[in-house]
Amino acid sequence: MLVSPDRKHYLIRLQHGGQWFSHRGSIAHDELIGQPLGRTVRTQHDYAYLALEPSTTDLIQNLPRTTQIVYGKDAAEIVLRLNLYPGRTVIEAGTGSGALTFILARAVMSTGHVYSYETRPEAFEIAQGNLADLGLTPYVTLYNEDISGGFHEQDVDALFLDLREPWFFLKHAWNALKGSGFFGALLPTTNQVSELLSALEALPFGDISVEEVLVRPWKPVPGRLRPEDRMIAHSSFLVFARKLAAGDESLRWMPEKKRRAYLGKQAMLEREAAEAAAETADE
Amino acid sequence: MLVSPDRKHYLIRLQHGGQWFSHRGSIAHDELIGQPLGRTVRTQHDYAYLALEPSTTDLIQNLPRTTQIVYGKDAAEIVLRLNLYPGRTVIEAGTGSGALTFILARAVMSTGHVYSYETRPEAFEIAQGNLADLGLTPYVTLYNEDISGGFHEQDVDALFLDLREPWFFLKHAWNALKGSGFFGALLPTTNQVSELLSALEALPFGDISVEEVLVRPWKPVPGRLRPEDRMIAHSSFLVFARKLAAGDESLRWMPEKKRRAYLGKQAMLEREAAEAAAETADE
Amino acid sequence: MLVSPDRKHYLIRLQHGGQWFSHRGSIAHDELIGQPLGRTVRTQHDYAYLALEPSTTDLIQNLPRTTQIVYGKDAAEIVLRLNLYPGRTVIEAGTGSGALTFILARAVMSTGHVYSYETRPEAFEIAQGNLADLGLTPYVTLYNEDISGGFHEQDVDALFLDLREPWFFLKHAWNALKGSGFFGALLPTTNQVSELLSALEALPFGDISVEEVLVRPWKPVPGRLRPEDRMIAHSSFLVFARKLAAGDESLRWMPEKKRRAYLGKQAMLEREAAEAAAETADE
Amino acid sequence: MLVSPDRKHYLIRLQHGGQWFSHRGSIAHDELIGQPLGRTVRTQHDYAYLALEPSTTDLIQNLPRTTQIVYGKDAAEIVLRLNLYPGRTVIEAGTGSGALTFILARAVMSTGHVYSYETRPEAFEIAQGNLADLGLTPYVTLYNEDISGGFHEQDVDALFLDLREPWFFLKHAWNALKGSGFFGALLPTTNQVSELLSALEALPFGDISVEEVLVRPWKPVPGRLRPEDRMIAHSSFLVFARKLAAGDESLRWMPEKKRRAYLGKQAMLEREAAEAAAETADE
Repeated sequence: MLVSPDRKHYLIRLQHGGQWFSHRGSIAHDELIGQPLGRTVRTQHDYAYLALEPSTTDLIQNLPRTTQIVYGKDAAEIVLRLNLYPGRTVIEAGTGSGALTFILARAVMSTGHVYSYETRPEAFEIAQGNLADLGLTPYVTLYNEDISGGFHEQDVDALFLDLREPWFFLKHAWNALKGSGFFGALLPTTNQVSELLSALEALPFGDISVEEVLVRPWKPVPGRLRPEDRMIAHSSFLVFARKLAAGDESLRWMPEKKRRAYLGKQAMLEREAAEAAAETADE
Repeated sequence: MLVSPDRKHYLIRLQHGGQWFSHRGSIAHDELIGQPLGRTVRTQHDYAYLALEPSTTDLIQNLPRTTQIVYGKDAAEIVLRLNLYPGRTVIEAGTGSGALTFILARAVMSTGHVYSYETRPEAFEIAQGNLADLGLTPYVTLYNEDISGGFHEQDVDALFLDLREPWFFLKHAWNALKGSGFFGALLPTTNQVSELLSALEALPFGDISVEEVLVRPWKPVPGRLRPEDRMIAHSSFLVFARKLAAGDESLRWMPEKKRRAYLGKQAMLEREAAEAAAETADE
Repeated sequence: MLVSPDRKHYLIRLQHGGQWFSHRGSIAHDELIGQPLGRTVRTQHDYAYLALEPSTTDLIQNLPRTTQIVYGKDAAEIVLRLNLYPGRTVIEAGTGSGALTFILARAVMSTGHVYSYETRPEAFEIAQGNLADLGLTPYVTLYNEDISGGFHEQDVDALFLDLREPWFFLKHAWNALKGSGFFGALLPTTNQVSELLSALEALPFGDISVEEVLVRPWKPVPGRLRPEDRMIAHSSFLVFARKLAAGDESLRWMPEKKRRAYLGKQAMLEREAAEAAAETADE
Repeated sequence: MLVSPDRKHYLIRLQHGGQWFSHRGSIAHDELIGQPLGRTVRTQHDYAYLALEPSTTDLIQNLPRTTQIVYGKDAAEIVLRLNLYPGRTVIEAGTGSGALTFILARAVMSTGHVYSYETRPEAFEIAQGNLADLGLTPYVTLYNEDISGGFHEQDVDALFLDLREPWFFLKHAWNALKGSGFFGALLPTTNQVSELLSALEALPFGDISVEEVLVRPWKPVPGRLRPEDRMIAHSSFLVFARKLAAGDESLRWMPEKKRRAYLGKQAMLEREAAEAAAETADE
């Protein structure tokens, strides 16, 4: 990776005889291959660039993509809140371009595993390529499949839904999780959050929480220290919950009103999911 | 871990024949040992508690401690920004109660390693106990040592300073890091941030950034969705940088004025660090 | 007003011969009456209190109240966004305890006027007392009335709704405002904001915006400058809009889809408002 | 003011026979003059624009200017915290382009007054023009003067410093304020805030506070309600304080250590201010 004097980051895949071009001149890949990092390299016009090992954030932001990529700040909080560490198993749907898959795989490898589902063939292929490039194929099983029929796995430690309508798949999520397993979802709008919360309450999920993560960057100038003028105001809302045991016992835990809602709502959701799946099949 | 109806979290170390007491009645440990999680258990007064596997955040917040513990939101961002994943090596100073050490060890295990330094004997012992309890001893080397003489390691991937005056130890940090290695520090006040930035500029560090992480919790009520009334407004500022190669080349990268500052400031910092070490030795 | 050494603010109504008591001792009102402000006064136990003129915020926070009082930060933004200044006319519903009424009256007096509506007799009486105490009676007309029949005024410059279901009264609001007049509302939940936006779109309102105001307090310590540990994370969402001319012309301004919604929704809202009014009348 | 379909705001000074041009076609001023507002007007290419009365924010943002203009969110908070309302007197330095002067004048007119100081002749002239255009000349006294010799007024209710180094002028500020009067300042960096706090502590000022105001805009879409992607992360820090009585009494209020600092620091500040004034005079 090269960093320009104006703090732009450029990711390069090095190959012998290659050349990197910019409006400030070019740099031969051979000047970088096998050389120590943290050095200044110069174009023929004597402009200096810093050669640095790329960070997780650099890698994510430069992945080939079809859709909006998860933000580093959100991915970091997801790993924390889903309690992921080497050895854990986690399901993700949908894969998208594989940016979150990459972060999840890095968190649970080498003894854990990520199972990731994606319906769109073009996204599936891009994700497959990205994970191979990053050397993470051994730790990830990618499915080019619809989840309306459920997940292949059972007793996973955690499950994350990055879908437009996650409420249709909560029953499947519940089935795939181990007891007390960690559930999470990412949603851009408050309307979706309300809908998901409502659906979570109708099933045996507990310890439900919603949050936003904001990162406020500062200008790193010691004598005139102040925040940057502008910041990202919003990426997504994060919703987390835990799987509870089914049956009377957990229902008794719920207040009376919610228990009655449970019966009605669960039936309605199942009906809607069936219809949604039928519609998808029709398209 | 037990979660009460009013969302309080209680961490319990289970032992046969043990009993857990609260103002709502007691629960026998034997009702929990070997039983599935995600269940409701009840006190003799018929109050329901949820039995859940504790999350990383629960474990951190319940560690025996001597000092302020790092927040989950900050720890998650530190792991991301220091580019930590299984196999990486990282130095930390000071250890404190071992909360961040725990997060770092979980991120780099089982093939990576954490080297953590702590001068105060009582904090060192608490951290040692905490890491043993969490089963992380194989992945962490704890030193009950002063760092004014430098670190034992070289070529580590990342280094993090959680100290009151990190600017005194930047030369040592630079020596311990690999080329382009990841440097980070956590500081509560803007005065400290200015001081650290000023010191970083006087040494071959680059790609410097400062940020704050804010987590805004929402009330998880679908029909009346709104943020909580109050939130944590501040824990710490996070400062990150990368190690650059020493010598003329990297100096030429700096603007003229900063280059001159480099020579003067570096000399001054070394003198101050020597004095600070001498003072500490006197105490 | 007295400020204690631990920064607590106490509002006192002075009267000859009166005495102010605290756990640190008492102070005679006569020591304060007619004396300059900005002075230290002392209890018989020699504890020092600062005597200061109360600020707008102090006055608001100490008003007798029946309900949640508007925050200063929100009130200041409302005055700005409703374009209020001396000479303007503004309608408010509901009055509540009169805190926002107080801010509005201060903004438009002495040539402007506030018209404020409140249905609950007990709130009406408290507000009446508060405004008399603050000497603002000449600038405010208080109605102890329901607004389901509309407002008495026409061609007002601005109108603000602080009600649980403001969407029922938008037609009345539109009727009372002058052309291009300023509309505003305050709502705690996102569900309410969605509902209000939806209703605004169905009527000739334009230039619609939604925002939150956050004030982050800092510890005023020069050598250890940092934000306070905690802050108010949420009070209310503020919604603003402008009255457009009715009729074809403004409908042509709307995209086709929204125009069709207009006809259906307007009819529905009127029906619902009529029902709501009928229900209220029944109670 | 005209609002385009893509929500851009255009401020127009109407004159008979005038014409407003845009890349979507032109509109004759005569179509707007004397016509009701809140209407849609159309260019010859049939593009619709909304004709609205400009708000305070629109007026501020379109003022001719030499420098950064105060943000509406900050101006609104300043009026609140300085306790300004019709009849109050307030000093401001420096005037800049007169944006804050405009807000202050609107808050205190028609019985109050603003006294505003500006050293740079070009800014002074622009401010003078802006205030005349806005019809506020009767409520503002503008001085094209340096404040190193002090202010002409005494016993003013409030005083606001929008200067790079306000700490040099605190003694003058103290002299101009009435007892318990409201002091405020606006500063972009934390280094300046530390410096000002330190200087305030060395003089008889109390009830000191520091804060930031953040406004988070939302997308006004009822079915997909969410915050905007980006927001203003920082404009300025606001510092507020109250004038205390001078002399032993207020010194006894300070803790011992601060009292000793008072004597040393006050002397130092006076010396520095004298030097700064001398330097300015030399230039």
